[in-house]
Amino acid sequence: MVIKYPDGTIYTPPSKEKKERKKPVALDNFAKRGMGLEDDINLSNDFYNASKACLVYKRPTPIRIVKMDKVDRKRISEAYFSAKSTTDYNGIYREKYIDFEAKETAEKTSFAFKNIRPQQISHLKSVIEQGGIAFFIIRMKAHNETYLLACEDFLPLLEKERKSIPYSFLQEKGVLIEESYSPRLKYLDAIDKRFFNK
Amino acid sequence: MVIKYPDGTIYTPPSKEKKERKKPVALDNFAKRGMGLEDDINLSNDFYNASKACLVYKRPTPIRIVKMDKVDRKRISEAYFSAKSTTDYNGIYREKYIDFEAKETAEKTSFAFKNIRPQQISHLKSVIEQGGIAFFIIRMKAHNETYLLACEDFLPLLEKERKSIPYSFLQEKGVLIEESYSPRLKYLDAIDKRFFNK
Repeated sequence: MVIKYPDGTIYTPPSKEKKERKKPVALDNFAKRGMGLEDDINLSNDFYNASKACLVYKRPTPIRIVKMDKVDRKRISEAYFSAKSTTDYNGIYREKYIDFEAKETAEKTSFAFKNIRPQQISHLKSVIEQGGIAFFIIRMKAHNETYLLACEDFLPLLEKERKSIPYSFLQEKGVLIEESYSPRLKYLDAIDKRFFNK
Repeated sequence: MVIKYPDGTIYTPPSKEKKERKKPVALDNFAKRGMGLEDDINLSNDFYNASKACLVYKRPTPIRIVKMDKVDRKRISEAYFSAKSTTDYNGIYREKYIDFEAKETAEKTSFAFKNIRPQQISHLKSVIEQGGIAFFIIRMKAHNETYLLACEDFLPLLEKERKSIPYSFLQEKGVLIEESYSPRLKYLDAIDKRFFNK
C-alpha cells in the first residue's frame, strides 16, 4: 500500500525484503540498505529512547474522520489526511525541547524549499523563540548523505528568497550525520556538535 | 458522530449549540458552558500559542490505515484507532519540555487509575528522568473543578497499589486551575505554582 500525503510526500511501507535486512549486516552494507529516512529515524529513536539518551517521538499523521462503520463500530470507513501544521518529530534531549522535520530528496545539487510548508517554518521559528532547538534532517539520496541543518542556519536563505538550499551550503553549514548499525542515524551526535559545542 | 477510542474514552464533537456558545458570555456562565476538557485545553493552547506564552500542541490520535479507496485515491476506506503509547499533549514552556495527559471523570470522591494506561505512566516517568515537566490535568465534573497534578505527586499512590486518587488528595496535592474566558483554563499559572514557585 502506497500512501500519498497532502504535501506530496509518498509513504511506501518497508517491504518484506527490507524487513529481512534488519538482521545484522556487514558495516559497509549500511549505505545500501535502502530504508527510507523516516524508518531510519524511527529506528534510531527506538534505540535512543530505550537507552534513555533522549525521549523523541514521531507525531502521528493527523487524519480527519468522516464516517464510522455502522456494523463494525471500531472501523473507520471514511477518512482523509489533514495538513500538518507542525513538524514530524519532537521531544526532549539534554533537558532541552527539540523539534524537527525530516525530508529526503533525489536532487543532486540542491534541496528545494517547496518541500517544506510555510506553517512548518513558522512553527520552527516559534520553537526558537521559546528557547527550543529546531532543525531539519535532510537526506541527499544521490550522495548517500544525511545532514542536520539548524533552523537558524537556513532562515537567511529563505529571507533572501532563495528557492532552494544548495548542496554546497548543506556541506558547509550542515552537520553530516554519521550512520551505524544501531542507532541507524547518530543524529544526537550531530545535535551535540551544532548546539552544544561537543 | 461519536467515536469510541480503544482506551474506552468516548469523543463527542462539540454540537452546533455548543459552537454558538463560544461567543462572549457572562463570566458566571463559564461553569455551565459544558464543553469537554479536551476542547477547553485546545482552545487554551490556541490562545497561549498565539500570545507566545508557550508552544503546546495536542498529538494527533494514531490511526492504523488498512485500505485506501481505489477510485478516490485520497480517501481512506478502512482504518482503526491504535493505542497511544504516549500522552495527549506536549510542548515547551519557560524553556522547559512539558508533557501531560488530560482526563475527566464523573465520579465524586475519586479518580480511578484504570483511566490511565500503564504506557502513559512509563512515558511520564521517562519525561521526569529527562528533566522535563510531567503532569495530569484532571477534571472532576461533579465538582466543576479542574486540577493540575504533578506526576511526582501521584506516583507514590500507585506504588502503594492504590486503585484511585481520592478527591481529598487532589484538593491537597493538586493545583486548582483557574478558569476564564480566554484562556478557558489558565493551566500555565498552575504550572508556575507547582513547578516554578511563582
